[in-house]
Amino acid sequence: MAQLRIAMAQVNPTVGDLDGNCRIVVDYARRAAEAGAHLAVFPELVVTGYPVEDLALRNSFVSASIKATHALAAALAEEGLGELPVAVGFLSRRTGVGERFGQPAGSPQNAFALLYRGRVEVTSAKHHLPNYGVFDEFRNFVPGETLPVVRLRGVDVAFAVCEDLWQGGGPVAAARAARVGALITINASPYERDKDNVRLELCQRRAREIGATVGYVNMCGGQDELIFDGDSLIVDAEGELVARAPKFEENLFVTDLALPDAGEAPEPQGPVDGVTVVRHTVSADPVPAYAPQPPVLTPRPDPASDIGEVYRALVVGVRDYAVKNGFATAAIALSGGIDSALTATIAVDALGGDRVYGLLLPSKYSSDHSVADAEELAKRQGIRARTVEIAPVVAAFEAAMHLDGLAAENLQARVRGTLLMGLSNQEGHLVLATGNKSELAAGYSTLYGDSVGGYAPIKDCWKTVVWELARWRNAEAERAGEVPPIPENSISKPPSAELRPGQLDTDSLPDYAVLDALLDAYIGTDKGLRELAIAGYEPELVQRVIRMVDRAEYKRRQYPPGPKISSRNLSRDRRLPITNRWTPQG
Amino acid sequence: MAQLRIAMAQVNPTVGDLDGNCRIVVDYARRAAEAGAHLAVFPELVVTGYPVEDLALRNSFVSASIKATHALAAALAEEGLGELPVAVGFLSRRTGVGERFGQPAGSPQNAFALLYRGRVEVTSAKHHLPNYGVFDEFRNFVPGETLPVVRLRGVDVAFAVCEDLWQGGGPVAAARAARVGALITINASPYERDKDNVRLELCQRRAREIGATVGYVNMCGGQDELIFDGDSLIVDAEGELVARAPKFEENLFVTDLALPDAGEAPEPQGPVDGVTVVRHTVSADPVPAYAPQPPVLTPRPDPASDIGEVYRALVVGVRDYAVKNGFATAAIALSGGIDSALTATIAVDALGGDRVYGLLLPSKYSSDHSVADAEELAKRQGIRARTVEIAPVVAAFEAAMHLDGLAAENLQARVRGTLLMGLSNQEGHLVLATGNKSELAAGYSTLYGDSVGGYAPIKDCWKTVVWELARWRNAEAERAGEVPPIPENSISKPPSAELRPGQLDTDSLPDYAVLDALLDAYIGTDKGLRELAIAGYEPELVQRVIRMVDRAEYKRRQYPPGPKISSRNLSRDRRLPITNRWTPQG
Repeated sequence: MAQLRIAMAQVNPTVGDLDGNCRIVVDYARRAAEAGAHLAVFPELVVTGYPVEDLALRNSFVSASIKATHALAAALAEEGLGELPVAVGFLSRRTGVGERFGQPAGSPQNAFALLYRGRVEVTSAKHHLPNYGVFDEFRNFVPGETLPVVRLRGVDVAFAVCEDLWQGGGPVAAARAARVGALITINASPYERDKDNVRLELCQRRAREIGATVGYVNMCGGQDELIFDGDSLIVDAEGELVARAPKFEENLFVTDLALPDAGEAPEPQGPVDGVTVVRHTVSADPVPAYAPQPPVLTPRPDPASDIGEVYRALVVGVRDYAVKNGFATAAIALSGGIDSALTATIAVDALGGDRVYGLLLPSKYSSDHSVADAEELAKRQGIRARTVEIAPVVAAFEAAMHLDGLAAENLQARVRGTLLMGLSNQEGHLVLATGNKSELAAGYSTLYGDSVGGYAPIKDCWKTVVWELARWRNAEAERAGEVPPIPENSISKPPSAELRPGQLDTDSLPDYAVLDALLDAYIGTDKGLRELAIAGYEPELVQRVIRMVDRAEYKRRQYPPGPKISSRNLSRDRRLPITNRWTPQG
Repeated sequence: MAQLRIAMAQVNPTVGDLDGNCRIVVDYARRAAEAGAHLAVFPELVVTGYPVEDLALRNSFVSASIKATHALAAALAEEGLGELPVAVGFLSRRTGVGERFGQPAGSPQNAFALLYRGRVEVTSAKHHLPNYGVFDEFRNFVPGETLPVVRLRGVDVAFAVCEDLWQGGGPVAAARAARVGALITINASPYERDKDNVRLELCQRRAREIGATVGYVNMCGGQDELIFDGDSLIVDAEGELVARAPKFEENLFVTDLALPDAGEAPEPQGPVDGVTVVRHTVSADPVPAYAPQPPVLTPRPDPASDIGEVYRALVVGVRDYAVKNGFATAAIALSGGIDSALTATIAVDALGGDRVYGLLLPSKYSSDHSVADAEELAKRQGIRARTVEIAPVVAAFEAAMHLDGLAAENLQARVRGTLLMGLSNQEGHLVLATGNKSELAAGYSTLYGDSVGGYAPIKDCWKTVVWELARWRNAEAERAGEVPPIPENSISKPPSAELRPGQLDTDSLPDYAVLDALLDAYIGTDKGLRELAIAGYEPELVQRVIRMVDRAEYKRRQYPPGPKISSRNLSRDRRLPITNRWTPQG
């Protein structure tokens, strides 16, 4: 067996910030070299950030990425890091093939590069292009058709990109045929509740299939709706977990591996399942024997604290959306209710209390406890709060135009939205919308009212999850001997929009425990009416709820983006026509 | 040669309205039978409407479509139309193949069916799945792998679906190899300026390649952002145009064709470029000789009146969005400027003057001519107009919160937006946003202000096109001896948002003739800074303008949908991350 010290850098690039992203690579490559690594590996598309979407179709962007990658190789050498092979993802293009109708303009590729001695030594491109869920890669890229197998310190290491590991055949089959010592995949795999074990099991299965160690390096940080959670890992050829990085944070983790010596394996005859093995030699001689370090094996928290992971994902989402879009501060309308209390708490954890501005906007229908609870929240967290009574503004509107019923309810929400946006325009805050997934699904919100803002931190959290998160956050504080950030009354009182006297959410909606389970079944699994009825839901309720959902499509489109935490969120994952007369009957 | 009378029905289905769409098919099939047709052909996915987007991933929707198609076959027979073969598009699924990771759930297919004698006699599915521009079919469907060749009255007729004609190879190659007498394609091909000749040329090229008559039936009507323009046509084996339907309207056109007798051609050996020819016989005996009718050949207007086609597309877009979403009336804020004047005129042409509600919302910065021009517009077109001064409402906001500069400008727009939405909520109108493409591109609008509404009729029209459309519409009225609907002053005065004293668009933006050309080059062709400079634009201006465009991505996402008329619009065609630090330099 040969030894190899691999450094995996789960870093947080920003889409389009080529210079900044390359600086991150140089910085982490230096740390890898200082740690004595023989190979440093960075995530998929680390040079451009992920996802680039239709930026991939801009020739000038592809050229800039290629140029930046070559400049990165040179910069690494100039920094004295040229002897360390550095694996990165970058946006490239297929050359030597003509444009084809229906194929992405310019033939962009989601590419891999190995940088060595100041040069781009090896390149290849992602073979399997995911085009489901949040992914649109068939729209943006053309597939690669090679698997690079690189002899590194006497070990044959294959490199593949993300989906290439998820799909059977293709690069996985080629890696097995090529009898590699290790397969390293570079990834930009977004967080979903419970996905980390799916990834581990995938790596274990593939390692056993290929008969080789599998290394998996993932991006971390937030990019619009996607939150990359890191969780990079290595499993050996028997599928045993060897090393694992922490979640949600930038990290360099260094692992000493004992890998089979590269042999003179019989070469596969031609392409394997459409993928041709291409061999390169970077360094044929093994590393002289050294004493390995113990691997990093970040313990997973027990499954019961899954909700804590969700909370961290939301904090990362808010932090990176603010930072990457140039906002230092956030503004939130505080109603005293649980949604705005939780959103504010997440914002404080992301940005700090002195960077969060709360606006209390009571009306004549607001109960006393609303203001008191919001003030208490602000006090506990050091939020900069101010109060503006909306009654005079509402009265001015009503003098200008007669509105009643729902129109009058919406008016109050819109006056609040306008004040909040006014504050944002005046002082430069990122406005956070406070709607939860249950409201969004059911259409229980006001267009241009409570739905204003740049980011919606809890839009992928059912109301029942909102309560769970609030309780978890308070309990965490108690465990740490701190004052719970969220007033108990905001958690325990019955939810109300307070847009008319005595209004409760349950006037218009079923109890949230029932509603959320039904919504999750309908939205998460695309079940129809009959299937939902078979699953035990009352048919009349099912019909009423799915009609509410189907009719709220337009409102959802207009809602700000927010961090995706479920396997099915309400924007990127679920793309429906606005005009749609169909509600499932069958 | 054998004779065949083909009826092509370019109809206007609604997504999800399976019953209504099937009623349209029965209605037009009856008219085809009455006209003595031997074959009636309907557009792609006529049973479900197009595009279905992720509805295709709902098992219950796919089942409903299959059931509706079988019921349609039965209904046609019950109506005495069973002897007429009827070709339709429907949503189906591939059976007998397991689910595969990364493949659309349930293996839905964009399918073809020939209905005959009460049964679904022949089926197949679209082979080439477009996944570019406005299309996401690789996300929603799995490809078909057969080309049905149906012997009909002694003629071998092949059937394919839309993209199958656009892509080389596949079904086109199989049709040639099968020596068919005619290839009929069913389509849902959206309108774009100048696309009609592209379609004609495509059909001509394919007809010559295959050596057979090509029939092309297209959908018509609006579905959210897409406008289907009909323009169904037939070309003979030499590529000569034989028959052509009108644009933008439902139409049944009947054409007598002389087609080669089906021969005993040598069968292709196995699949041709991945597509297997499957033969069916519906009726082997030719039609007894009869005297053919002269074909319908709707003349094309001369290219100079292209702008008139754009206008018709916008009217169809507004009409169908309103009707299909259940709105009988529309509301528009009338500023006296050209954008709201044109939008209102389109709405009146779509719905009638008595169904359009105008709201005049002058502020202290509104000039006298603004109100006078808006009133004159309403008077000329019979729009139900009312005036609400916004000053008292703005004053109430300013008493509640100090706002100045841009925040104060935005406030006025938001007060207007709130009043317009209030009117809509109170009375049930569809609110039409009046922004044009230049404003949207440059981000020259107020979130939740002038951007409120359900539909934005001119969002894909550059400001220069807005003026052109207004002048064209007035000239049309003059030609018809009517009063021009748009006051000349709204067309000729310099554009202004009137949010501060003496404000003109040219304070913040270059002259629209320059701006629009540059925006069109940047957005329409994805050119970078250097390429735009080479194309003759002043580099400093290019940099300033593309920065404006790149920074306005979030605002564009929040803008209502509107009819797509260009080859590149600002929502469905151009999908970019919100967080993006890159502005082209190279």
